[in-house]
Amino acid sequence: MTGGGDSAVEVRVRYPEVDRMGVAHHTVHFVWFEIGRTELMRRRGAVYAALEDQGIFLPVVGAECTYRAPARYDDVVRVRTAVTHARGARIGFSYRIERAADGALLATGATRHAAIDGRGRPRRLPQQILELLD
Amino acid sequence: MTGGGDSAVEVRVRYPEVDRMGVAHHTVHFVWFEIGRTELMRRRGAVYAALEDQGIFLPVVGAECTYRAPARYDDVVRVRTAVTHARGARIGFSYRIERAADGALLATGATRHAAIDGRGRPRRLPQQILELLD
Amino acid sequence: MTGGGDSAVEVRVRYPEVDRMGVAHHTVHFVWFEIGRTELMRRRGAVYAALEDQGIFLPVVGAECTYRAPARYDDVVRVRTAVTHARGARIGFSYRIERAADGALLATGATRHAAIDGRGRPRRLPQQILELLD
Amino acid sequence: MTGGGDSAVEVRVRYPEVDRMGVAHHTVHFVWFEIGRTELMRRRGAVYAALEDQGIFLPVVGAECTYRAPARYDDVVRVRTAVTHARGARIGFSYRIERAADGALLATGATRHAAIDGRGRPRRLPQQILELLD
Repeated sequence: MTGGGDSAVEVRVRYPEVDRMGVAHHTVHFVWFEIGRTELMRRRGAVYAALEDQGIFLPVVGAECTYRAPARYDDVVRVRTAVTHARGARIGFSYRIERAADGALLATGATRHAAIDGRGRPRRLPQQILELLD
Repeated sequence: MTGGGDSAVEVRVRYPEVDRMGVAHHTVHFVWFEIGRTELMRRRGAVYAALEDQGIFLPVVGAECTYRAPARYDDVVRVRTAVTHARGARIGFSYRIERAADGALLATGATRHAAIDGRGRPRRLPQQILELLD
Repeated sequence: MTGGGDSAVEVRVRYPEVDRMGVAHHTVHFVWFEIGRTELMRRRGAVYAALEDQGIFLPVVGAECTYRAPARYDDVVRVRTAVTHARGARIGFSYRIERAADGALLATGATRHAAIDGRGRPRRLPQQILELLD
Repeated sequence: MTGGGDSAVEVRVRYPEVDRMGVAHHTVHFVWFEIGRTELMRRRGAVYAALEDQGIFLPVVGAECTYRAPARYDDVVRVRTAVTHARGARIGFSYRIERAADGALLATGATRHAAIDGRGRPRRLPQQILELLD
């Protein structure tokens, strides 16, 4: 099971992230997901930049998002991230994006990752990392 | 059913789209999907910019991508797009991203869209547009 | 003259902002400049989103940046922004980007802006805004 | 002197590149500049991706742009690029962005680059590259 509950981080919608409809372009939610999982990992002691320096990369092998309400320019959004699984060379996260001002749900999503080394070969996540994340 | 087969467009991987791993960041595939459906629509006579000028917007309500192999800086990728459904105020597309040089499959994905007016209210797609896309 | 000193805001370098050289792509500095001037304006009581809602837009008419040292993935950078001029329908800002950890200077730059209305016609900035910024 | 005239490439304005004002965000012009110089180099036989594989990097040390008229969503813009200087470990480019439909001038700009090796140390550009570009 995945303990530790979720992790929240707040981000403000930037001007270039907003499109002609005046709302955050749908690709930006995946950037927020990435910020969400990076901060979750940092808080649990697994700094992603340090993992890469050790030759452990976690590319996205699957990503999905369902959009429920738009995020507007200059809104602060809250990204809630949870680990869904962390085993062997696989790890997954789920996300909720909320408008910080009133908690309204803006989007939900998930990503799946494969641990690889610097040459792109699968490698098990170190036990210590699995324990931090699981 | 959705006739007309798919539509292909080629795009070169740009320098700022590539990340520290030397490959296109996973958010870029959604930009390619958008280029794919825009060109499919253009070829069928439904120019998306003109639709917006008429007050018809097609925001993404769901998006997903499965990543199979990396796209590298300066690679040319081919985006193959097909309409999966087009009915009422709903339209969906599926995508395949291939490396143009050898046809290798890099990613597959799908997006779902809701037709809305300039105030964000659902509106049926005009019959003419549905016929062009279906 | 432009009083009030400068305004500082900190931003973390995001994964998709970093390129194949492992450093922030040179376009990202202009996004940081935009965050810098937006926060300077907010602190002085001129919320840019609210200006736009009143039909006052401040598009960039000139932008420049000199890059002195790279910003790396996950680094926190500090953006220092100052108003260089604010008169009539013209406003200018200067910027310094520093690495937050040690204060090292990473880049300097400037932007010039023209105040326009929603139809793209020049319009004087309201006296109240000029006083807040000058 | 720098012979060989300029080099032109056309690019379509993408949806996520357009902001709330309905025009290309000012950072996108620097991406177009990069596409412009990459294609100029490719046509002269100096493929930038191949240079990097040989350990020659050309980071931007200075960039500037003057914006004259907006580029709109789905417009095709033409990027005209010329080499301004290429000597030792230094190279510079100038750019003109035009609307392809009518040739209207949208922006002009310039970038300066320093040749470095994979460790960030200055290195002279190979004579062959200087000759191709100069």
